[in-house]
Amino acid sequence: MNPKYKDQELAGYKFYESISSIPDDSPIDLAMVAVPAKITPIILEELGKKGVSFVHIFSSGFSELDSEFDKTGKKLEEELIKIASKYGIRILGPNCMGIHNPKGKMTFLMAPFMEEGSVGFISQSGGIAVAHGMRSPSLGYYFSKNISLGNQIDLDLIDFLRYFKDDPDTKIIGLYVENLKRDGNKLIPLLKEITPTKPVILWKGGKLQTGHQAVMSHTGGMAGEYKLWQTMAHQTGTILVDDLKELTEMVQTCLTYPIPKTLGTAVLSMSGGTAVDSTDKVELNGLIMPRISENTYKKINEFIPEVNSNLKNPLEYGGNNSMKATLKTIELLAEEKQFSFIILGASPEFIVYRRGNSLDDYLKDLSNALPPDSDKLLMCVTSSMTMSSAGIKLNSQFRSRSLSHGFVAYDSTEAAAKCCYRLWEYGQYLERRNLIKRNNKKVVVSK
Amino acid sequence: MNPKYKDQELAGYKFYESISSIPDDSPIDLAMVAVPAKITPIILEELGKKGVSFVHIFSSGFSELDSEFDKTGKKLEEELIKIASKYGIRILGPNCMGIHNPKGKMTFLMAPFMEEGSVGFISQSGGIAVAHGMRSPSLGYYFSKNISLGNQIDLDLIDFLRYFKDDPDTKIIGLYVENLKRDGNKLIPLLKEITPTKPVILWKGGKLQTGHQAVMSHTGGMAGEYKLWQTMAHQTGTILVDDLKELTEMVQTCLTYPIPKTLGTAVLSMSGGTAVDSTDKVELNGLIMPRISENTYKKINEFIPEVNSNLKNPLEYGGNNSMKATLKTIELLAEEKQFSFIILGASPEFIVYRRGNSLDDYLKDLSNALPPDSDKLLMCVTSSMTMSSAGIKLNSQFRSRSLSHGFVAYDSTEAAAKCCYRLWEYGQYLERRNLIKRNNKKVVVSK
Repeated sequence: MNPKYKDQELAGYKFYESISSIPDDSPIDLAMVAVPAKITPIILEELGKKGVSFVHIFSSGFSELDSEFDKTGKKLEEELIKIASKYGIRILGPNCMGIHNPKGKMTFLMAPFMEEGSVGFISQSGGIAVAHGMRSPSLGYYFSKNISLGNQIDLDLIDFLRYFKDDPDTKIIGLYVENLKRDGNKLIPLLKEITPTKPVILWKGGKLQTGHQAVMSHTGGMAGEYKLWQTMAHQTGTILVDDLKELTEMVQTCLTYPIPKTLGTAVLSMSGGTAVDSTDKVELNGLIMPRISENTYKKINEFIPEVNSNLKNPLEYGGNNSMKATLKTIELLAEEKQFSFIILGASPEFIVYRRGNSLDDYLKDLSNALPPDSDKLLMCVTSSMTMSSAGIKLNSQFRSRSLSHGFVAYDSTEAAAKCCYRLWEYGQYLERRNLIKRNNKKVVVSK
Repeated sequence: MNPKYKDQELAGYKFYESISSIPDDSPIDLAMVAVPAKITPIILEELGKKGVSFVHIFSSGFSELDSEFDKTGKKLEEELIKIASKYGIRILGPNCMGIHNPKGKMTFLMAPFMEEGSVGFISQSGGIAVAHGMRSPSLGYYFSKNISLGNQIDLDLIDFLRYFKDDPDTKIIGLYVENLKRDGNKLIPLLKEITPTKPVILWKGGKLQTGHQAVMSHTGGMAGEYKLWQTMAHQTGTILVDDLKELTEMVQTCLTYPIPKTLGTAVLSMSGGTAVDSTDKVELNGLIMPRISENTYKKINEFIPEVNSNLKNPLEYGGNNSMKATLKTIELLAEEKQFSFIILGASPEFIVYRRGNSLDDYLKDLSNALPPDSDKLLMCVTSSMTMSSAGIKLNSQFRSRSLSHGFVAYDSTEAAAKCCYRLWEYGQYLERRNLIKRNNKKVVVSK
């Protein structure tokens, strides 16, 4: 609807002059409103008269622009709510991108991102909803729905969380939240209902109480409010992360791995310096690095000489590594009870450019590295040796394809270790609530 | 020298059967030894007889392989030291890559990395020396010398630090250290001599006392030894970082920026969510975000409408940003006393793919964004929107070229904020020692 283009067409669809001029024979499922804020009440009134039940208000210029002294936006929003309740309209927004729903062929993204997936994402920021959506192909996962909430004057976080709880297409839920608009007391019981079957990953933006405001001093800001979120997460089994990168890595982790039984981690590394660094990053993030048993050590020593190597944990191959030796080592480590995580320093650059092997074979080798019934989690860490465009591109291909090969390729040991620890913590929660037993076989939550 | 290839040639150089068979008319400046560890004493003895003064022992298989019960490697090293002192030979290594010295046409890297630069790097890990060297082209800086220390049985960290102190080609010094072999008491006074004129950036690997060993429990490990390193850094003005990525970012920072006068930071961001996140990352890393003055705010509001924007700090342009508006905003912020840092969320992907502008123009615009006499530090943060191969490649080109355009492009606000804070802390040290006055004009340490 746009009076400027009256009777014209766009992609086969006719423009109408007004909402009332739209013929009644085709009912309107959803209206998307993108007029200046001031006019939205008039449009909503017309939509109500037309019998439209669902309205997404894209327009901004509402309460998000208000100051201490000027509450114009808030007043406009109250007007909208009044009209909506008169006609029984449900509103998404205002000030939001709306819903990306590939199954329903509805999106705020462009065509290449329309594949259907199993991740449900709810974001209080439209920019972050778009950024997350556009990263899909490189992350190796797609969305059931990706929702930009905006000012939440009607439909809010709780409504969509409740929807995802029962949505069979959604296996994992990601959240970007800045603050709660209302119903804070409903959040904890709802999360407790969801987390036993669907992992919930929460990025809380605006950790400091000063938040979005610029102030000269903010002592104690974080100690206050964010601690509440941390406590809430602990009580509900919600997995907390610190930014979009961590959120996407945690989604990949939950999509790919079973719940680990222990914090025990084995690290396979190519260079001594990297091995030392990996130990720091692994242990500083809460994992532990048990010894390799004497027996396994001896077996590894049969095919890897000691010179230029360190066959303890972290294992360091130096110049002696070959794919065959790596695979054999993983196989041996898979039999060691003290490890749940095997973190492999993988270098697609080395394999492809130096060894001349194909990326396909490398991915396949790694996807078959663990015995099929293994309860270990094999994760890769790839950082480009040269950081050249070609190297970075190869790594990014490797990473985006890793998920479909049954493992996650992280860009740093720190990123991998954080995800390991968070997945283990999630397992602890499930165990506390008697939802899993760690001495059981493989526990997969999200498949 | 290799008896196997006696009288053969390689690239025009003749193989000799033994060291004694090399004619005396061409003196040997440096010998590089890459024979099995056991034979190294024999070779060293021959080199001594031949009058060779400098020997780099590449071979490994020395004390790094020793265990509690087997000290074979240590004994071999002692034998080498004995022979060396008999003949007055200085040894680098064993178990190291040696020296990358582009000016002297000597390297452990390949040809494309031979450009001369102003960064001196000393690494206790050969792998990290190589990794740092190979990243050069993508980092936008090169080395005066890049040194792999190995087991340091003779020449050690202190020797090379002392060399870099007086080396006119070296403006900035980077260090990767796992532990001190000896002369620990010489390190502090030496660093105090260096840091007033050359920033020293130190990555201490093996932060936990358990370090390279695998143990089940390491409580209190870090509290012990690493605290000593932190105290040492504080006392000497040494800049501590946590991994190679942080080290390279800090080198770029010191190469590019003057010492900041305050911690005041202005953030320019494209989306609201990113702005909230940036605030978290900036403030959690010790920077502060003062208000924009009423006067400047009004001036910005003249060319940027309020809808879809937040003109406070962090500034958020939403859909209203144009390069012209960005440049005008930077110009206005450059006049505000309360800011030292201006952190700009830059998106080469948006500029090149969406706007159709060239990367060259974008780089040039940014390099001229600040008035020439400004004491502000303009830094960019680029993260790929799509994380696609093309997007990542474009960002990596932007980053590698940013240094030559007078700014650093970091891959996250967190990375930028950490560097800002560390540079400010370094300034604090210089001020405590009365080496700079902050109320002076621009202070550039490393140019």
